[in-house]
Amino acid sequence: MTKVRQIKLGAMLEGVGTDHGRWQHPDLPGDASINIDWYIENAKLAEAAKFDFVFIVDSPYITKDSAPHFLNRLEPLTLLSAVAVTTKTIGLAGTLTTSYWEPYNVARQFGSLDLISRGRAGWNVVTTGLEGAARNYSRDEHFEHGVRYARAEEFVSVVKGLWDSYEDDAFLRDKVSGQFLDAGKQHALNHNGTFFSVAGPLALSRSKQGQPVIFQAGDSSEGRDLGAKIADATFTISESLESSKGYYRDLKSRAAALGRDPDQIVVLPGIDPIVADTDEAAQEILKARQGAFDLDKALVQVGRAFNYHDFKKYPIDGPFPDTSNLTLNSYKGHAERIIKVAKDENLTLRQVAERFGVWKATFVGSPETVADSLELWFRERAADGFILRVSEPDTFRIFREKVVPILQARGLFRNEYEHDTLRGHLGLSIPENRYADQTHISDVAAQ
Amino acid sequence: MTKVRQIKLGAMLEGVGTDHGRWQHPDLPGDASINIDWYIENAKLAEAAKFDFVFIVDSPYITKDSAPHFLNRLEPLTLLSAVAVTTKTIGLAGTLTTSYWEPYNVARQFGSLDLISRGRAGWNVVTTGLEGAARNYSRDEHFEHGVRYARAEEFVSVVKGLWDSYEDDAFLRDKVSGQFLDAGKQHALNHNGTFFSVAGPLALSRSKQGQPVIFQAGDSSEGRDLGAKIADATFTISESLESSKGYYRDLKSRAAALGRDPDQIVVLPGIDPIVADTDEAAQEILKARQGAFDLDKALVQVGRAFNYHDFKKYPIDGPFPDTSNLTLNSYKGHAERIIKVAKDENLTLRQVAERFGVWKATFVGSPETVADSLELWFRERAADGFILRVSEPDTFRIFREKVVPILQARGLFRNEYEHDTLRGHLGLSIPENRYADQTHISDVAAQ
Repeated sequence: MTKVRQIKLGAMLEGVGTDHGRWQHPDLPGDASINIDWYIENAKLAEAAKFDFVFIVDSPYITKDSAPHFLNRLEPLTLLSAVAVTTKTIGLAGTLTTSYWEPYNVARQFGSLDLISRGRAGWNVVTTGLEGAARNYSRDEHFEHGVRYARAEEFVSVVKGLWDSYEDDAFLRDKVSGQFLDAGKQHALNHNGTFFSVAGPLALSRSKQGQPVIFQAGDSSEGRDLGAKIADATFTISESLESSKGYYRDLKSRAAALGRDPDQIVVLPGIDPIVADTDEAAQEILKARQGAFDLDKALVQVGRAFNYHDFKKYPIDGPFPDTSNLTLNSYKGHAERIIKVAKDENLTLRQVAERFGVWKATFVGSPETVADSLELWFRERAADGFILRVSEPDTFRIFREKVVPILQARGLFRNEYEHDTLRGHLGLSIPENRYADQTHISDVAAQ
Repeated sequence: MTKVRQIKLGAMLEGVGTDHGRWQHPDLPGDASINIDWYIENAKLAEAAKFDFVFIVDSPYITKDSAPHFLNRLEPLTLLSAVAVTTKTIGLAGTLTTSYWEPYNVARQFGSLDLISRGRAGWNVVTTGLEGAARNYSRDEHFEHGVRYARAEEFVSVVKGLWDSYEDDAFLRDKVSGQFLDAGKQHALNHNGTFFSVAGPLALSRSKQGQPVIFQAGDSSEGRDLGAKIADATFTISESLESSKGYYRDLKSRAAALGRDPDQIVVLPGIDPIVADTDEAAQEILKARQGAFDLDKALVQVGRAFNYHDFKKYPIDGPFPDTSNLTLNSYKGHAERIIKVAKDENLTLRQVAERFGVWKATFVGSPETVADSLELWFRERAADGFILRVSEPDTFRIFREKVVPILQARGLFRNEYEHDTLRGHLGLSIPENRYADQTHISDVAAQ
């Protein structure tokens, strides 16, 4: 029986939100980003709506000008462990940077979350775009972009190696014979690489999904290469149907070229829709939000991709400034796209701010209209699913109560969970323990 | 009103235990150390018995010969976050090493746990005794003992600085005016020290207890100095009433010499009692455990203090070997004590193994007898309270059901919680935010 392809859905829980005004919604607690009850409540709502997972993004650097949610938010691992024991089935994915952690600690914490949640953990691998992060970690300078990605690749390979420290049948726990561990099934990694030397073993057995799911976000060429190599799922931007189709094709061919099954990488654009009862009502909301356009904040937002470069100092109606003297070591893929579009379309700085510095709504309309768009993107293979930004409560409620049932009625989304692990939800196979074959062979030989 | 001094109690949750046989108890799940339900259940039992906190120890290094609990156990931060949302009042303390982490990440995770638990977090600061840990963190050699302690002191000072990043009234969250943050109450740390340079600020506000409680364990002179400087509570060994009284006096005088209030450091020996219905029954259990004495395992246990030095190679009935060529860079305080006692009492290697290589029972007897001992240690100021090892279920049950009520009847232990933070339980004051005074002064000046 061939499994029908269905849309995957993640809920990106963003507390008070990353727009400067979203936190002012009357029904949103002002402390949502540090209030575990808010996260648990929304994770339960997402689970009741049969979402595949909740998703927590993160960054280890803030300034006084950071968006409300960034200023003061719970840390992903602790947050998700709390959500793990207050939910039953939904996946739990969190962001953590490979630039400022030790692989042994990361393997330990995500492995522990995977056991606590009984196979529902996911790690969103990032390399950190903001150069200021370096100064929180005793470094004068952020790692250069290429180094970050090379380091990330080795980092993930070490973590995955540590996760295999015990074969699945290593622990006998035979109270009669007194044998707790079959010591031959504990394996040291003994990794010696460019960036890391890690002996192992890790003091953790594997969960029922084998290993946490690896998410990856990063749109530069290096980012796509890393995704093609290591990712089980990618979190991407959703600028347009065509650009997303291009990304989808590109990423899956890179994976296929590496000998991977392209169906084993799930492509998930982030979406931030406006859904209202009617198309007209949704367009009204869009107009109101666009009316609140703030040029200064838009320029800061554009500058963020260039490591908070100050674009306010240039003539606003002049051409987009020459950025060739800036090192693109921050959100490089995004910065490169801004440069390319500005050049191709001959945009002024103001036009760039309007295009890239403001909140984008790719999906605006009635529940039916938004469901149509999601279906189109899914069928056209611009996406295998979507990660919905969840902050102010109205959008999430209408999405769950109106959009999801339409997708279900069309057979595009599950009515009930069929699995209880994140890999199960996403249709990902369980990675075999790298040492399992050896043991099998030695078992046979010993007979 | 002067507060009556009462005993503090912690429950060290050790899953399948660190003795090689304890996991075989019929009522203990064989997977207890990786089973979050076991931890939650026991945390709830400790909370019902009005314990001050649960306590999770940890180490980032194992071998095939590690004790059952060490081989495969949940990581403290993820574990405690799960316990935080399934309990209401009990404190939550976890161990994390300053030798192989970044202060920014530690501040973030313990600060997050403190918000998730609403002021119940504690961090047990250790420097890691086992040299093999270095090879899990891309280092050839473990940090030298003195460096470890100097690094720990600076590490904790950075973390505490980051925890003060926001004054307690920094977030206005005024939905009408649109002011979310009073930016003047966000403070960068800009630390530049010997081991770390950390700019900050941290993206977390403080909990209702101000900052997580700092626990510290370490019995060497450097360890005691560190405790006197940074600790709110110390986790100590309980070899004898006299040695514990000596430690208690010494630690509190070191703290007083630094200008600290000695009552603001809570001294908590770890205990692993045998409690049975009668003294005779308890002595029977003790004899049975001692009868199971295993010389090889005892020598491994002695060797652990000397970085797993192999003591099996020496004549067992000869004098305790000369260890002057061994660098005491592992559990230095413990190793030094072994050397001193062996010399003072002219012990053979076998006698050292019997004394230091086996499970010790300082408190053995009926509930009344054990309560008498606890009271004696408390009144004689060998302890302000105790941390009880919890693994096989019988001891914990008898302790809760029989020993605790005796202490309560004597007015030595609370009948009900009077606080809902860990600092509250332990009688520790809330640390004032280091920037609060400045603001206050500038507020006054601005009037």
